[in-house]
Amino acid sequence: MRRTTKKNWVGFDLGGTKMQACVYNDTFTCLGRKRKKTLGHEGSEAGLARIVETINKALNEANVAAASLGGIGVGCPGPLDLNKGIMIDTPNLGWKNVKLKEFLEKEFQCPAIIANDVDAGVYGEYRRGAAVGARCVLGVFPGTGIGGGCVYEGKLIRGKKGSCMELGHLQVLPEGPLCGCGQHGCLEAVASRLAISSAAAVAAYRGDAPALLELAGMDLSNIRSAALRKSIEAGDHVIEQIIREAARWLGVGIANIINLLSPDVVVLGGGLVEALPHLFLEVVTETARAHVMPAYVKSFQVLISKLGDDATTVGSACLARDAVLEE
Amino acid sequence: MRRTTKKNWVGFDLGGTKMQACVYNDTFTCLGRKRKKTLGHEGSEAGLARIVETINKALNEANVAAASLGGIGVGCPGPLDLNKGIMIDTPNLGWKNVKLKEFLEKEFQCPAIIANDVDAGVYGEYRRGAAVGARCVLGVFPGTGIGGGCVYEGKLIRGKKGSCMELGHLQVLPEGPLCGCGQHGCLEAVASRLAISSAAAVAAYRGDAPALLELAGMDLSNIRSAALRKSIEAGDHVIEQIIREAARWLGVGIANIINLLSPDVVVLGGGLVEALPHLFLEVVTETARAHVMPAYVKSFQVLISKLGDDATTVGSACLARDAVLEE
Repeated sequence: MRRTTKKNWVGFDLGGTKMQACVYNDTFTCLGRKRKKTLGHEGSEAGLARIVETINKALNEANVAAASLGGIGVGCPGPLDLNKGIMIDTPNLGWKNVKLKEFLEKEFQCPAIIANDVDAGVYGEYRRGAAVGARCVLGVFPGTGIGGGCVYEGKLIRGKKGSCMELGHLQVLPEGPLCGCGQHGCLEAVASRLAISSAAAVAAYRGDAPALLELAGMDLSNIRSAALRKSIEAGDHVIEQIIREAARWLGVGIANIINLLSPDVVVLGGGLVEALPHLFLEVVTETARAHVMPAYVKSFQVLISKLGDDATTVGSACLARDAVLEE
Repeated sequence: MRRTTKKNWVGFDLGGTKMQACVYNDTFTCLGRKRKKTLGHEGSEAGLARIVETINKALNEANVAAASLGGIGVGCPGPLDLNKGIMIDTPNLGWKNVKLKEFLEKEFQCPAIIANDVDAGVYGEYRRGAAVGARCVLGVFPGTGIGGGCVYEGKLIRGKKGSCMELGHLQVLPEGPLCGCGQHGCLEAVASRLAISSAAAVAAYRGDAPALLELAGMDLSNIRSAALRKSIEAGDHVIEQIIREAARWLGVGIANIINLLSPDVVVLGGGLVEALPHLFLEVVTETARAHVMPAYVKSFQVLISKLGDDATTVGSACLARDAVLEE
């Protein structure tokens, strides 16, 4: 392990709809940040140019010279080749075979790494968020799908080339609804934000969720976390029931993983959880405790993400620093 | 890490019905071995005396002096306090709070460690058996229950104090048969040797498995691996069907864990698998490939245990050596 003399780090979150760059000092205080739309449909070349622009604007805001960067970490949607730093094929951006690590290293003349966005988020929570100091952290982030990651004794558990912890595809109900992956009853098919939105749209159609109908209509792309929360506040009891049922399945899936990996901390995050933290904390904790083996009932805590939208930038910057110091 | 000058190691397998000690040289060639019945009902004090006697007889056979031992490793049934080396409470022996590590260190004047028996077996397969060199190994050993373990980048994944990887309690069928743990449809309730034997007994009772009835009757304690294999060879097709169905569930459970941990090697072991290796290899491989996410279909191999009954002794001796060298 070598000591670095460089002091600043960029963490980058490359999302399906927006991207964010944060510049951190060596103790991970954010010195500057910049957000832009991703506009994946414009292609990867335009996308790479936007990434550079976003990083440069964040550096400007932070009043930090690129020459002072110790490294850049980027959390991106998979599948990835983590060793080579390549985005293999990203369906929701339409990008293929993007050599992001190589590109950034040339552009900024410093080491770069890429990580799965959820992995980076879980690592961020472990290093600077809700799970600091935990021996084993399971992160669960329900969104369009359900992202998962695990930090075990200080390191992210990963596959040979890419990330793993595909807990959205834990099959909790073998006769359940068809999942995008081709199986039935995956956790994602019963507990993702998309599964919730689709059940909520049905309730709206039936006239059982008048507030939601008024707020967001029946189009799944409009039935997002804030609309769901507001409709509950406005009295749509059925929406609360739908989300409690989804949270119950999350708890069942999490219990199965606790029986395997015995995490001491389970971190829940993502927009939906952050919109309704008390509901998720209560239902997931209760269900998980009821479903784990007796020896594990008191072995874990369920916590809500502390870093929110910054988890991925913090985590990817930490991973970049780790990689440089380990070399 | 320090080099040891001691050259010999004891691996010990403390089972519910029998115990075995093996003496290994520094490259894990077995120099001597001894088996005895465990006779757990005689109590832990008598049990500890039998353990010492068994180790001493193995040392005699190996012509190795206790003074030349680098360490002793014992694979035992859980739950354990791995850090303190205590068998907390072992229902199938009736022993409680046995300070095995401390006892052996005094008795043999060398370092001792304890490990979960299945973990030790998986580690043995990783170090000297079917999974040598694998980045991530998942071991699955169906027996009375279903044991599991995982070696990830050279180290066993474990809980804070005890082992984890309780894959027998992965809930594969939420409306399925009641499991001993209180949940429904755990893998153990549909795919363990005990689940198979109970379905086989029903078939025998109904007159559908005449060979099994003749060989073993309807008593679950007699319907063991060899009887099941022989009844299939004698033409009891229904017994083959029952075992194929159990192996299919094993494959489903394993697929779920592949989606989480992305092992490159899955090792199947235990008496039942060793009695019918081709059947298990075929059905588990096929089912797991059909149930994992597309990205993982070609990412793993299913293999049969190479060390058989010696996996736990080899693995626990390796763990003892690791512990001494790491100090």
